[in-house]
Amino acid sequence: MTLTLHPRHDTTLAGRLSRSATERTAGAGPRTAEVADWLAERRAAHRFAVTRIPFADLEGWAFQPDTGNLAHHSSRFFTVEGLRAEIGGEPPTRWVQPIIRQPEVGILGILAKEFDGVLHFLMQAKMEPGNPNLLQLSPTVQATRSNYTNVHRGAAVKYLDYFTRPGPGRRVVADVLQSEHGSWFFHKSNRNMIVETDEEVPSEPDFTWLTLGQIGALLHVDDLVNMDARTVLSCAPVAFPETSARLSDSMLMSWFTGERSRHETRMSCVPLNYVTGWERDEWSIHRPDGRYFKVVSVGVEAGSREVSSWTQPLFEPAGQGVVAFITQRFGGVPHLLVNARVEGGFLDTVELSATVQCIPDNYRQPGAAGRPPFLDLVLDTAPERVRYEAVHSEEGGRFLNAESRYLIVEPATPIEGALPAGYCWLTPGQLASLTRHGHYVNVQARTLLSCLTTGAVTW
Amino acid sequence: MTLTLHPRHDTTLAGRLSRSATERTAGAGPRTAEVADWLAERRAAHRFAVTRIPFADLEGWAFQPDTGNLAHHSSRFFTVEGLRAEIGGEPPTRWVQPIIRQPEVGILGILAKEFDGVLHFLMQAKMEPGNPNLLQLSPTVQATRSNYTNVHRGAAVKYLDYFTRPGPGRRVVADVLQSEHGSWFFHKSNRNMIVETDEEVPSEPDFTWLTLGQIGALLHVDDLVNMDARTVLSCAPVAFPETSARLSDSMLMSWFTGERSRHETRMSCVPLNYVTGWERDEWSIHRPDGRYFKVVSVGVEAGSREVSSWTQPLFEPAGQGVVAFITQRFGGVPHLLVNARVEGGFLDTVELSATVQCIPDNYRQPGAAGRPPFLDLVLDTAPERVRYEAVHSEEGGRFLNAESRYLIVEPATPIEGALPAGYCWLTPGQLASLTRHGHYVNVQARTLLSCLTTGAVTW
Repeated sequence: MTLTLHPRHDTTLAGRLSRSATERTAGAGPRTAEVADWLAERRAAHRFAVTRIPFADLEGWAFQPDTGNLAHHSSRFFTVEGLRAEIGGEPPTRWVQPIIRQPEVGILGILAKEFDGVLHFLMQAKMEPGNPNLLQLSPTVQATRSNYTNVHRGAAVKYLDYFTRPGPGRRVVADVLQSEHGSWFFHKSNRNMIVETDEEVPSEPDFTWLTLGQIGALLHVDDLVNMDARTVLSCAPVAFPETSARLSDSMLMSWFTGERSRHETRMSCVPLNYVTGWERDEWSIHRPDGRYFKVVSVGVEAGSREVSSWTQPLFEPAGQGVVAFITQRFGGVPHLLVNARVEGGFLDTVELSATVQCIPDNYRQPGAAGRPPFLDLVLDTAPERVRYEAVHSEEGGRFLNAESRYLIVEPATPIEGALPAGYCWLTPGQLASLTRHGHYVNVQARTLLSCLTTGAVTW
Repeated sequence: MTLTLHPRHDTTLAGRLSRSATERTAGAGPRTAEVADWLAERRAAHRFAVTRIPFADLEGWAFQPDTGNLAHHSSRFFTVEGLRAEIGGEPPTRWVQPIIRQPEVGILGILAKEFDGVLHFLMQAKMEPGNPNLLQLSPTVQATRSNYTNVHRGAAVKYLDYFTRPGPGRRVVADVLQSEHGSWFFHKSNRNMIVETDEEVPSEPDFTWLTLGQIGALLHVDDLVNMDARTVLSCAPVAFPETSARLSDSMLMSWFTGERSRHETRMSCVPLNYVTGWERDEWSIHRPDGRYFKVVSVGVEAGSREVSSWTQPLFEPAGQGVVAFITQRFGGVPHLLVNARVEGGFLDTVELSATVQCIPDNYRQPGAAGRPPFLDLVLDTAPERVRYEAVHSEEGGRFLNAESRYLIVEPATPIEGALPAGYCWLTPGQLASLTRHGHYVNVQARTLLSCLTTGAVTW
């Protein structure tokens, strides 16, 4: 019997990723400084228009008579349903809210290839209706199962084949199911893939090759690298140098297991009709106090998407979010302060979030509960202690104008002593190693991690 | 600020576990050959009696009028509810069945300590009502949350403190949430822990210290090492020597991610009243054709448990199970054939099971579907090619007389060519590395893995 054994671990990959991260100004494709112009050119090459519409103008979508759920007549894509959430405690915390349910697993895939001995990544100029600037730098492939099984009846997804058909000239660099926004999606996860190929890759006008370092440099620009690209890049198996940490890897796993065990959560989908405290009018489903988010609808015209016009619901948050890691050195080793955070849509109780993740506006109204721990410390950090700052959009296919200000800050006064329950210091390498597996690191924390894997931020 | 950094990885642990696995005949406690006698002595020291009772004689348990669910009046412990399962496909597979729902996370913990430079594990002689021989070798601590928050109003759980209170003389060896039987439990997981201590550990009559190798030797005895001990031991971070494999670790993760993505499953709890095709009489809930399992009740008297008498429901399977790994060498490296298996109660679509996992009696009745792949190959393997064989009990706190014949076989004729969908070759080291995280390896496969981590089976 002929067969090939493979080394269990590719010992050259981390070095090749690091090499790609050092190339920040230019690669085989456009120079970094030219990418914004290239995106503007691609935007000009197509006709894009997104307009708010009343629910009555949704085509193929309707509120179901028995449940009130907002669904497409094909039963595919996604539905807007209700979430009933309960977190155990004395007293327990309970709430209901609208939530997006989309049980199918999509593919977010970036194709990689060496040019002149340097790994490059094939990035797409892609329009998504919820992005404030519509078109951003996206993975090679960003396809729901409905996309690639062709429920849309649109054009075939370009380059999909590299991610669905393994072959001798194709090597998996990363392939892991990662969660999406747990406050807005119920049990949603996507397949985050990086595949390296030796094959000749055909060119397409909306696609371009960039190094890891170029993408890292572009992560300093607001609203340029989309969420799907950020989450995939956070999964790149980059090596981090730390060999010691506040907690050994075993202690960290034990802390996380303890956090997952100590929360008794009961999260279930219920009919949207059961969601009390939210109102529906012609244009939106919203809370009378304006907090959290609204469910709205848009009409879309696009020349470069698989189909040229459609309508769909989107979630529109109540304000700009803040997502921030506090970083601090211990014995010279940089650490990040993570929070084991319950979100209603998570498959399993908690995932690790950044130190702070919230929409500050939610805490300004009369009667709003106390401000989240560390929020004011982050917002008050002096500019020279801000290691990273940029505004990024969340998934533009489901969320409208959902932007967050992403920060990594190193406050002048170190945090000493015991942390609040649910918080823990870990190293960038420890956080990165957890993204080899799903359901450890939430999507917002993965955006900040992508700043480390691409070399956008270094210590 | 004073603080200690820890090395991320404990480089001595794997060697110390291996050292303990080589001590097979004797350690600081009883000789291996004496353990069965010690268990018999502990059995004789207590008064144990388990009798079948009709549902009407359950104390504190009742079928709920609105749902038909079998529940305890305290709303704790567990409930017997319905499962509605749907697996996508053409056509989809659908079924309903009773299932145990117990959302709380328990602790299965083994305390470890060095004696004369060799790691020993504190094992308990514990009675569980469903075990055919009642008393088996169990983890140091085996406690539901109801146990240790004292809903039972019984005695305190001995040694619990080592697992719930970290301290300087206590080091976590393993701590991971692992699933339990996905066909009988809905979303159940327990915290599998090994904690090493340097402290003086007080003696208790029902507890004894054994080496890893002694426990491995005892795994060759039928019905001696209980399921909870086996699953915890499967998580011991033992080193395996293989550096190459049929699939690299990245390829293996990609295969697994693909398996998890390609199954569209919809599993939901429904009232037990909705479970059609099952009948309830005075003594059991069962199918008219006798397949799968029954829900029954028992009365228990026990001298060594936290409370001395109680009644409870148990699930009683329709026959003895077969759980078998087929093993084969490729390029001299041993591999195991795993199956990415859907079970209705899994939190996330599939987990890796052994090559074969079934109750063969379910496939003998007229109208039963075809026999599972590889079952006949396993059962027909010549005795000299059987690398491991023993009968073990499943969780005796929930299942009555649930025994499986566990096998590792190396058929004389190698399996060549393409495998059926959902099957894959991996090495023992790859399987073990997946148990560092939850929801990859199911509980039956973990029993067979414990034969490798304890050195019960070697190649």
